[in-house]
Amino acid sequence: MSLIDALKWRYATKKMNGTVVPQEKVDQIIEAARLAPTSSGLQPFRIIVVTNPELKEKIKPIAYGQAQITDASHLLIFASWDKYTEERIRSVFSNANHERGLPDDSPSDYEVQLTGGLLAKTAEENFAHTARQAYIGFGMAIAEAALLEVDATPMEGFNNAQLDELLGLTERGLRSVTILALGHRDAAGDWLVNLKKVRTPSAQFLIEFN
Amino acid sequence: MSLIDALKWRYATKKMNGTVVPQEKVDQIIEAARLAPTSSGLQPFRIIVVTNPELKEKIKPIAYGQAQITDASHLLIFASWDKYTEERIRSVFSNANHERGLPDDSPSDYEVQLTGGLLAKTAEENFAHTARQAYIGFGMAIAEAALLEVDATPMEGFNNAQLDELLGLTERGLRSVTILALGHRDAAGDWLVNLKKVRTPSAQFLIEFN
Repeated sequence: MSLIDALKWRYATKKMNGTVVPQEKVDQIIEAARLAPTSSGLQPFRIIVVTNPELKEKIKPIAYGQAQITDASHLLIFASWDKYTEERIRSVFSNANHERGLPDDSPSDYEVQLTGGLLAKTAEENFAHTARQAYIGFGMAIAEAALLEVDATPMEGFNNAQLDELLGLTERGLRSVTILALGHRDAAGDWLVNLKKVRTPSAQFLIEFN
Repeated sequence: MSLIDALKWRYATKKMNGTVVPQEKVDQIIEAARLAPTSSGLQPFRIIVVTNPELKEKIKPIAYGQAQITDASHLLIFASWDKYTEERIRSVFSNANHERGLPDDSPSDYEVQLTGGLLAKTAEENFAHTARQAYIGFGMAIAEAALLEVDATPMEGFNNAQLDELLGLTERGLRSVTILALGHRDAAGDWLVNLKKVRTPSAQFLIEFN
Protein backbone atom coordinates (compact mmCIF):
# COMPACT_ATOMS: atom_id res chain seq x y z
CA MET A 1 0.00 0.00 0.00
CA SER A 2 1.30 3.47 -0.85
CA LEU A 3 1.61 6.03 1.93
CA ILE A 4 -1.12 8.14 0.31
CA ASP A 5 -3.49 5.16 0.31
CA ALA A 6 -2.48 4.33 3.89
CA LEU A 7 -3.25 7.88 5.00
CA LYS A 8 -6.65 7.60 3.36
CA TRP A 9 -7.25 4.27 5.14
CA ARG A 10 -6.31 5.58 8.59
CA TYR A 11 -8.50 7.74 10.80
CA ALA A 12 -8.50 8.84 14.42
CA THR A 13 -9.99 5.62 15.74
CA LYS A 14 -12.52 6.33 18.47
CA LYS A 15 -13.41 2.74 19.37
CA MET A 16 -10.81 -0.01 19.51
CA ASN A 17 -11.64 -3.70 19.97
CA GLY A 18 -9.04 -4.49 22.61
CA THR A 19 -6.97 -6.94 20.54
CA VAL A 20 -3.19 -6.91 20.80
CA VAL A 21 -1.00 -5.42 18.07
CA PRO A 22 1.83 -7.87 17.23
CA GLN A 23 5.11 -6.80 18.83
CA GLU A 24 6.87 -6.90 15.44
CA LYS A 25 4.57 -4.17 14.14
CA VAL A 26 4.92 -2.08 17.29
CA ASP A 27 8.70 -2.34 16.93
CA GLN A 28 8.52 -1.07 13.32
CA ILE A 29 6.32 1.86 14.31
CA ILE A 30 8.79 2.87 17.01
CA GLU A 31 11.71 2.33 14.64
CA ALA A 32 10.17 4.75 12.12
CA ALA A 33 10.00 7.39 14.85
CA ARG A 34 13.55 6.64 15.93
CA LEU A 35 14.78 7.10 12.34
CA ALA A 36 12.94 10.41 11.93
CA PRO A 37 15.20 13.38 11.25
CA THR A 38 15.50 16.02 13.95
CA SER A 39 17.31 19.32 14.28
CA SER A 40 21.08 18.68 14.19
CA GLY A 41 20.27 15.01 14.78
CA LEU A 42 19.74 15.64 18.49
CA GLN A 43 16.60 13.49 18.79
CA PRO A 44 15.49 15.40 21.87
CA PHE A 45 12.57 13.14 22.65
CA ARG A 46 11.82 9.66 23.91
CA ILE A 47 8.98 7.20 23.50
CA ILE A 48 7.38 5.66 26.57
CA VAL A 49 5.53 2.45 25.79
CA VAL A 50 2.70 1.47 28.10
CA THR A 51 1.02 -1.93 27.89
CA ASN A 52 0.44 -2.48 31.61
CA PRO A 53 -3.35 -2.61 32.20
CA GLU A 54 -3.26 -1.08 35.69
CA LEU A 55 -1.14 1.80 34.44
CA LYS A 56 -3.50 2.39 31.51
CA GLU A 57 -6.37 2.57 34.02
CA LYS A 58 -4.45 5.26 35.92
CA ILE A 59 -3.77 7.21 32.73
CA LYS A 60 -7.41 7.14 31.62
CA PRO A 61 -8.71 9.86 34.00
CA ILE A 62 -5.64 11.98 33.18
CA ALA A 63 -6.82 11.77 29.54
CA TYR A 64 -10.33 12.83 30.54
CA GLY A 65 -11.72 9.30 30.40
CA GLN A 66 -11.09 8.67 26.71
CA ALA A 67 -11.79 5.00 25.99
CA GLN A 68 -8.84 4.49 23.63
CA ILE A 69 -6.45 4.73 26.57
CA THR A 70 -7.61 1.40 27.98
CA ASP A 71 -8.93 -0.17 24.75
CA ALA A 72 -5.60 0.37 22.99
CA SER A 73 -3.06 -2.40 22.77
CA HIS A 74 -0.06 -0.10 23.25
CA LEU A 75 0.22 3.55 24.24
CA LEU A 76 3.19 5.36 22.76
CA ILE A 77 3.80 8.48 24.81
CA PHE A 78 6.07 10.99 23.10
CA ALA A 79 8.02 13.02 25.68
CA SER A 80 10.57 15.72 24.89
CA TRP A 81 13.63 16.96 26.71
CA ASP A 82 12.59 19.71 29.13
CA LYS A 83 15.64 21.68 27.97
CA TYR A 84 18.95 21.32 26.19
CA THR A 85 22.03 20.75 28.34
CA GLU A 86 25.70 20.53 27.43
CA GLU A 87 25.77 16.94 28.66
CA ARG A 88 22.83 15.86 26.51
CA ILE A 89 24.22 17.48 23.36
CA ARG A 90 27.71 16.11 24.05
CA SER A 91 26.30 12.61 24.45
CA VAL A 92 24.63 12.75 21.01
CA PHE A 93 27.74 14.01 19.23
CA SER A 94 30.01 11.64 21.13
CA ASN A 95 27.84 8.68 20.09
CA ALA A 96 27.85 9.84 16.46
CA ASN A 97 31.63 10.31 16.42
CA HIS A 98 32.10 6.89 17.96
CA GLU A 99 29.76 5.19 15.47
CA ARG A 100 31.46 6.95 12.56
CA GLY A 101 34.97 6.18 13.71
CA LEU A 102 35.77 9.87 14.07
CA PRO A 103 37.93 11.38 16.81
CA ASP A 104 36.01 12.58 19.84
CA ASP A 105 38.70 14.26 21.93
CA SER A 106 37.02 17.64 21.90
CA PRO A 107 33.75 19.05 20.54
CA SER A 108 33.84 20.33 16.95
CA ASP A 109 33.37 24.02 16.18
CA TYR A 110 29.88 23.13 14.95
CA GLU A 111 28.98 21.44 18.22
CA VAL A 112 30.37 24.31 20.30
CA GLN A 113 28.42 26.87 18.31
CA LEU A 114 25.22 24.81 18.40
CA THR A 115 25.51 24.23 22.15
CA GLY A 116 26.14 27.90 22.83
CA GLY A 117 23.12 28.93 20.79
CA LEU A 118 20.77 26.45 22.44
CA LEU A 119 21.93 27.12 26.00
CA ALA A 120 21.51 30.88 25.47
CA LYS A 121 17.76 30.29 25.22
CA THR A 122 15.34 29.73 28.08
CA ALA A 123 14.16 26.25 29.07
CA GLU A 124 10.71 27.11 27.71
CA GLU A 125 12.20 28.15 24.35
CA ASN A 126 14.21 24.92 24.32
CA PHE A 127 11.10 22.88 25.07
CA ALA A 128 9.13 24.58 22.29
CA HIS A 129 11.89 23.33 19.97
CA THR A 130 12.23 19.82 21.40
CA ALA A 131 8.44 19.37 21.28
CA ARG A 132 8.41 20.23 17.58
CA GLN A 133 11.06 17.60 16.91
CA ALA A 134 8.93 15.02 18.70
CA TYR A 135 6.12 15.79 16.28
CA ILE A 136 8.28 14.76 13.32
CA GLY A 137 8.73 11.36 14.94
CA PHE A 138 5.03 11.35 15.80
CA GLY A 139 4.25 11.87 12.10
CA MET A 140 6.57 9.01 11.12
CA ALA A 141 4.96 6.68 13.66
CA ILE A 142 1.50 7.56 12.34
CA ALA A 143 2.71 6.91 8.78
CA GLU A 144 4.26 3.54 9.63
CA ALA A 145 1.23 2.42 11.64
CA ALA A 146 -1.03 3.21 8.67
CA LEU A 147 1.26 1.34 6.27
CA LEU A 148 1.10 -1.71 8.57
CA GLU A 149 -2.69 -1.31 8.88
CA VAL A 150 -2.44 -0.74 12.60
CA ASP A 151 -4.98 1.76 13.88
CA ALA A 152 -3.43 4.68 15.66
CA THR A 153 -5.20 7.53 17.42
CA PRO A 154 -3.20 10.74 17.90
CA MET A 155 -4.15 12.19 21.30
CA GLU A 156 -3.22 15.59 22.69
CA GLY A 157 -6.09 15.78 25.16
CA PHE A 158 -4.56 14.91 28.52
CA ASN A 159 -3.13 16.68 31.53
CA ASN A 160 0.58 16.75 30.74
CA ALA A 161 1.79 17.61 34.23
CA GLN A 162 -0.22 14.80 35.81
CA LEU A 163 1.05 12.28 33.25
CA ASP A 164 4.64 13.42 33.82
CA GLU A 165 4.22 12.85 37.52
CA LEU A 166 2.57 9.45 37.15
CA LEU A 167 5.31 8.17 34.85
CA GLY A 168 8.22 9.82 36.66
CA LEU A 169 9.14 11.82 33.56
CA THR A 170 10.17 15.00 35.39
CA GLU A 171 13.05 13.19 37.13
CA ARG A 172 14.20 12.03 33.71
CA GLY A 173 14.15 15.60 32.38
CA LEU A 174 11.24 14.80 30.07
CA ARG A 175 7.86 16.42 29.45
CA SER A 176 5.02 14.51 27.79
CA VAL A 177 3.91 16.00 24.50
CA THR A 178 1.48 13.67 22.78
CA ILE A 179 0.14 10.10 22.80
CA LEU A 180 -0.36 7.60 19.99
CA ALA A 181 -2.79 4.87 20.97
CA LEU A 182 -2.24 1.71 18.90
CA GLY A 183 -4.83 -0.96 18.38
CA HIS A 184 -7.48 -2.25 16.00
CA ARG A 185 -10.72 -0.51 15.15
CA ASP A 186 -14.06 -1.81 16.38
CA ALA A 187 -15.80 -0.72 13.20
CA ALA A 188 -19.27 -1.63 14.39
CA GLY A 189 -18.92 0.56 17.49
CA ASP A 190 -17.11 3.56 16.01
CA TRP A 191 -19.16 6.59 14.97
CA LEU A 192 -16.26 8.09 12.99
CA VAL A 193 -15.20 5.16 10.82
CA ASN A 194 -17.79 5.71 8.09
CA LEU A 195 -17.69 9.49 7.96
CA LYS A 196 -15.96 10.84 4.87
CA LYS A 197 -12.39 11.97 5.45
CA VAL A 198 -12.28 15.71 4.82
CA ARG A 199 -9.23 17.87 4.30
CA THR A 200 -8.61 21.49 3.34
CA PRO A 201 -8.91 21.66 -0.47
CA SER A 202 -5.56 21.80 -2.25
CA ALA A 203 -6.37 25.18 -3.77
CA GLN A 204 -6.53 26.60 -0.23
CA PHE A 205 -3.78 24.46 1.27
CA LEU A 206 -1.17 25.40 -1.33
CA ILE A 207 0.33 28.79 -2.13
CA GLU A 208 2.59 28.75 -5.18
CA PHE A 209 5.39 31.01 -6.35
CA ASN A 210 6.37 29.76 -9.80
CA MET B 1 10.57 0.18 -0.55
CA SER B 2 9.37 0.04 3.05
CA LEU B 3 9.22 3.27 5.04
CA ILE B 4 11.96 1.98 7.35
CA ASP B 5 14.24 1.34 4.35
CA ALA B 6 13.30 4.72 2.87
CA LEU B 7 14.22 6.47 6.13
CA LYS B 8 17.57 4.68 6.08
CA TRP B 9 18.09 5.78 2.46
CA ARG B 10 17.31 9.43 3.13
CA TYR B 11 19.63 11.94 4.76
CA ALA B 12 19.76 15.71 5.14
CA THR B 13 21.18 16.33 1.68
CA LYS B 14 23.80 19.05 1.79
CA LYS B 15 24.59 19.24 -1.92
CA MET B 16 21.93 18.95 -4.59
CA ASN B 17 22.61 18.66 -8.30
CA GLY B 18 20.06 21.19 -9.52
CA THR B 19 17.87 18.76 -11.47
CA VAL B 20 14.11 19.15 -11.38
CA VAL B 21 11.89 16.83 -9.35
CA PRO B 22 8.95 15.63 -11.51
CA GLN B 23 5.76 17.52 -10.67
CA GLU B 24 3.91 14.25 -10.08
CA LYS B 25 6.26 13.41 -7.21
CA VAL B 26 6.05 16.91 -5.75
CA ASP B 27 2.27 16.62 -5.83
CA GLN B 28 2.38 13.32 -3.92
CA ILE B 29 4.71 14.78 -1.29
CA ILE B 30 2.35 17.70 -0.74
CA GLU B 31 -0.64 15.37 -0.73
CA ALA B 32 0.91 13.30 2.08
CA ALA B 33 1.25 16.48 4.14
CA ARG B 34 -2.31 17.52 3.30
CA LEU B 35 -3.62 14.12 4.46
CA ALA B 36 -1.67 14.28 7.75
CA PRO B 37 -3.84 14.24 10.85
CA THR B 38 -3.98 17.41 12.94
CA SER B 39 -5.65 18.43 16.18
CA SER B 40 -9.45 18.34 15.66
CA GLY B 41 -8.76 18.20 11.92
CA LEU B 42 -8.11 21.95 11.82
CA GLN B 43 -5.02 21.71 9.56
CA PRO B 44 -3.77 25.07 10.84
CA PHE B 45 -0.91 25.30 8.37
CA ARG B 46 -0.25 25.86 4.70
CA ILE B 47 2.51 24.88 2.28
CA ILE B 48 4.13 27.55 0.16
CA VAL B 49 5.86 26.11 -2.91
CA VAL B 50 8.71 28.11 -4.38
CA THR B 51 10.27 27.21 -7.72
CA ASN B 52 10.94 30.74 -8.99
CA PRO B 53 14.73 31.14 -9.32
CA GLU B 54 14.78 34.87 -8.50
CA LEU B 55 12.74 34.26 -5.37
CA LYS B 56 15.03 31.42 -4.29
CA GLU B 57 17.97 33.82 -4.68
CA LYS B 58 16.21 36.26 -2.36
CA ILE B 59 15.50 33.53 0.18
CA LYS B 60 19.08 32.30 0.23
CA PRO B 61 20.56 35.10 2.40
CA ILE B 62 17.55 34.80 4.73
CA ALA B 63 18.61 31.15 5.17
CA TYR B 64 22.18 32.20 5.92
CA GLY B 65 23.46 31.35 2.45
CA GLN B 66 22.71 27.64 2.56
CA ALA B 67 23.25 26.21 -0.93
CA GLN B 68 20.22 23.89 -0.91
CA ILE B 69 17.91 26.90 -1.16
CA THR B 70 19.01 27.62 -4.72
CA ASP B 71 20.18 24.11 -5.68
CA ALA B 72 16.82 22.61 -4.73
CA SER B 73 14.18 21.96 -7.34
CA HIS B 74 11.27 22.96 -5.10
CA LEU B 75 11.16 24.63 -1.69
CA LEU B 76 8.20 23.62 0.45
CA ILE B 77 7.75 26.24 3.15
CA PHE B 78 5.51 25.12 6.00
CA ALA B 79 3.72 28.10 7.55
CA SER B 80 1.23 27.93 10.42
CA TRP B 81 -1.72 30.05 11.37
CA ASP B 82 -0.53 32.90 13.58
CA LYS B 83 -3.55 32.25 15.82
CA TYR B 84 -6.91 30.54 15.90
CA THR B 85 -9.95 32.63 15.03
CA GLU B 86 -13.64 31.84 15.08
CA GLU B 87 -13.80 32.38 11.33
CA ARG B 88 -10.96 29.95 10.60
CA ILE B 89 -12.39 27.22 12.81
CA ARG B 90 -15.90 27.76 11.44
CA SER B 91 -14.61 27.44 7.89
CA VAL B 92 -13.03 24.03 8.62
CA PHE B 93 -16.14 22.62 10.29
CA SER B 94 -18.43 24.12 7.68
CA ASN B 95 -16.41 22.47 4.90
CA ALA B 96 -16.47 19.12 6.74
CA ASN B 97 -20.23 19.30 7.31
CA HIS B 98 -20.77 20.18 3.67
CA GLU B 99 -18.56 17.33 2.41
CA ARG B 100 -20.27 14.87 4.73
CA GLY B 101 -23.78 15.97 3.85
CA LEU B 102 -24.46 17.05 7.44
CA PRO B 103 -26.50 20.10 8.47
CA ASP B 104 -24.45 23.25 9.03
CA ASP B 105 -27.04 25.69 10.34
CA SER B 106 -25.23 26.23 13.61
CA PRO B 107 -21.94 25.08 15.17
CA SER B 108 -22.10 21.79 17.09
CA ASP B 109 -21.51 21.72 20.85
CA TYR B 110 -18.08 20.22 20.11
CA GLU B 111 -17.16 23.08 17.80
CA VAL B 112 -18.40 25.71 20.26
CA GLN B 113 -16.41 24.18 23.12
CA LEU B 114 -13.29 23.77 20.98
CA THR B 115 -13.48 27.35 19.70
CA GLY B 116 -13.97 28.73 23.19
CA GLY B 117 -10.97 26.82 24.51
CA LEU B 118 -8.65 27.88 21.69
CA LEU B 119 -9.70 31.55 21.71
CA ALA B 120 -9.17 31.72 25.49
CA LYS B 121 -5.45 31.24 24.86
CA THR B 122 -2.97 33.87 23.69
CA ALA B 123 -1.88 34.14 20.06
CA GLU B 124 1.57 32.83 21.08
CA GLU B 125 0.02 29.80 22.76
CA ASN B 126 -2.10 29.23 19.66
CA PHE B 127 0.96 29.48 17.43
CA ALA B 128 2.90 26.99 19.57
CA HIS B 129 0.05 24.59 18.86
CA THR B 130 -0.37 25.33 15.15
CA ALA B 131 3.39 24.98 14.63
CA ARG B 132 3.36 21.52 16.18
CA GLN B 133 0.59 20.47 13.80
CA ALA B 134 2.69 21.66 10.86
CA TYR B 135 5.45 19.33 12.00
CA ILE B 136 3.17 16.30 11.62
CA GLY B 137 2.67 17.28 7.98
CA PHE B 138 6.37 17.99 7.72
CA GLY B 139 7.08 14.43 8.89
CA MET B 140 4.62 13.01 6.35
CA ALA B 141 6.23 15.01 3.53
CA ILE B 142 9.68 13.75 4.54
CA ALA B 143 8.35 10.18 4.62
CA GLU B 144 6.70 10.43 1.20
CA ALA B 145 9.76 12.07 -0.37
CA ALA B 146 11.96 9.24 0.90
CA LEU B 147 9.54 6.61 -0.42
CA LEU B 148 9.66 8.29 -3.84
CA GLU B 149 13.47 8.55 -3.63
CA VAL B 150 13.33 12.31 -3.75
CA ASP B 151 15.99 13.96 -1.62
CA ALA B 152 14.59 16.30 0.97
CA THR B 153 16.52 18.51 3.38
CA PRO B 154 14.63 19.66 6.47
CA MET B 155 15.73 23.23 7.23
CA GLU B 156 14.95 25.26 10.34
CA GLY B 157 17.90 27.62 9.96
CA PHE B 158 16.43 30.80 8.51
CA ASN B 159 15.13 34.15 9.73
CA ASN B 160 11.42 33.51 10.06
CA ALA B 161 10.33 37.15 10.26
CA GLN B 162 12.29 38.09 7.13
CA LEU B 163 10.87 35.16 5.19
CA ASP B 164 7.33 36.04 6.31
CA GLU B 165 7.85 39.56 5.03
CA LEU B 166 9.36 38.50 1.72
CA LEU B 167 6.51 36.08 0.97
CA GLY B 168 3.73 38.27 2.34
CA LEU B 169 2.78 35.65 4.90
CA THR B 170 1.92 38.09 7.70
CA GLU B 171 -0.98 39.55 5.68
CA ARG B 172 -2.25 36.00 5.23
CA GLY B 173 -2.12 35.39 8.98
CA LEU B 174 0.68 32.85 8.56
CA ARG B 175 4.09 32.42 10.17
CA SER B 176 6.82 30.34 8.54
CA VAL B 177 7.90 27.37 10.59
CA THR B 178 10.19 25.15 8.56
CA ILE B 179 11.40 24.45 5.02
CA LEU B 180 11.73 21.21 3.09
CA ALA B 181 14.11 21.58 0.15
CA LEU B 182 13.39 18.96 -2.54
CA GLY B 183 15.90 17.85 -5.16
CA HIS B 184 18.41 15.19 -6.02
CA ARG B 185 21.68 14.56 -4.23
CA ASP B 186 25.01 15.41 -5.82
CA ALA B 187 26.68 12.43 -4.20
CA ALA B 188 30.17 13.33 -5.41
CA GLY B 189 29.97 16.78 -3.87
CA ASP B 190 28.24 15.95 -0.58
CA TRP B 191 30.36 15.44 2.53
CA LEU B 192 27.46 13.89 4.46
CA VAL B 193 26.24 11.25 2.03
CA ASN B 194 28.76 8.58 3.02
CA LEU B 195 28.78 9.17 6.76
CA LYS B 196 26.99 6.45 8.71
CA LYS B 197 23.49 7.37 9.82
CA VAL B 198 23.50 7.45 13.61
CA ARG B 199 20.51 7.45 15.91
CA THR B 200 20.00 7.20 19.65
CA PRO B 201 20.20 3.49 20.54
CA SER B 202 16.79 1.89 21.10
CA ALA B 203 17.68 1.02 24.71
CA GLN B 204 17.98 4.75 25.41
CA PHE B 205 15.20 5.91 23.10
CA LEU B 206 12.55 3.64 24.60
CA ILE B 207 11.16 3.53 28.12
CA GLU B 208 8.82 0.61 28.72
CA PHE B 209 6.07 0.00 31.25
CA ASN B 210 4.93 -3.59 30.71
